[in-house]
Amino acid sequence: MSVAAVSRGRTITEADVVAFSGLTGDHHPQHTDAVWAGAGPFGGIVAHGMLVLSYALGLVALDPDRIAALRRIEDVVFKRPVRIGDTIRVEAKVARPDEGRGLEGWEWRILNQNDELVIRAKVEAVVRGEDGPEAEPAADEPGQPAEAQGSVAR
Amino acid sequence: MSVAAVSRGRTITEADVVAFSGLTGDHHPQHTDAVWAGAGPFGGIVAHGMLVLSYALGLVALDPDRIAALRRIEDVVFKRPVRIGDTIRVEAKVARPDEGRGLEGWEWRILNQNDELVIRAKVEAVVRGEDGPEAEPAADEPGQPAEAQGSVAR
Repeated sequence: MSVAAVSRGRTITEADVVAFSGLTGDHHPQHTDAVWAGAGPFGGIVAHGMLVLSYALGLVALDPDRIAALRRIEDVVFKRPVRIGDTIRVEAKVARPDEGRGLEGWEWRILNQNDELVIRAKVEAVVRGEDGPEAEPAADEPGQPAEAQGSVAR
Repeated sequence: MSVAAVSRGRTITEADVVAFSGLTGDHHPQHTDAVWAGAGPFGGIVAHGMLVLSYALGLVALDPDRIAALRRIEDVVFKRPVRIGDTIRVEAKVARPDEGRGLEGWEWRILNQNDELVIRAKVEAVVRGEDGPEAEPAADEPGQPAEAQGSVAR
């Protein structure tokens, strides 16, 4: 395991939550209705889990010279809510180096300004070979072989 | 297992990919550089995997009277790229019903206009009890017990 690299921070503002709701169409009241959310266990509006995870990818900024695409998200646990005004950052480390398979496993810890873990995630990325990505197509969907042309892993 | 419910469709436009890049800060050339992406295995710009997954949540539109929050994403496999102009829809079914734990497991199949699988995902949601969500805090982070106040699972 390599040493974890730490990203810059990003403050999650009200504008972020509004924009993400509008763009994705996820208008669950936990993110859009201050009265509904205020009466719930979090006591107010919290950011979408997918917002935080998507912003984490922006913060980590996968190197295009090495990484062709995201292949798999193996596990994501939403540990704590991210509230308006919280500042997140990502600790990322290689958990499974590429050993000729063309796939590299990463562990991410998304932390808030109090060093509390808000999301823990394991992701797998496609490493570019000299002639492009070398990974095999995903073969875990019986009866649905990935297309040679279309598979994300090619 | 219940019968799968099918969402409405949504066409992924160039504007979606541009807006998602700008909002999240994920400017990987696979999503933003037509020349770079055109020389790669997909032959052009493809949507962010997180865009497709986030839009799927908007299409599924979790019922706020039943579902308090997303708790976990157990597995997501990006099977095929989503290109500009593709139309996605989501087949969702309950794979693990809530049996008093306050957690419900879902399986999603995100399909394109040709009925091809583009993303397969397993998610776990917190079911609201009469007095709010009943789930225990996640306890799988040694030395980092979830806070009673702040855990997503409460």
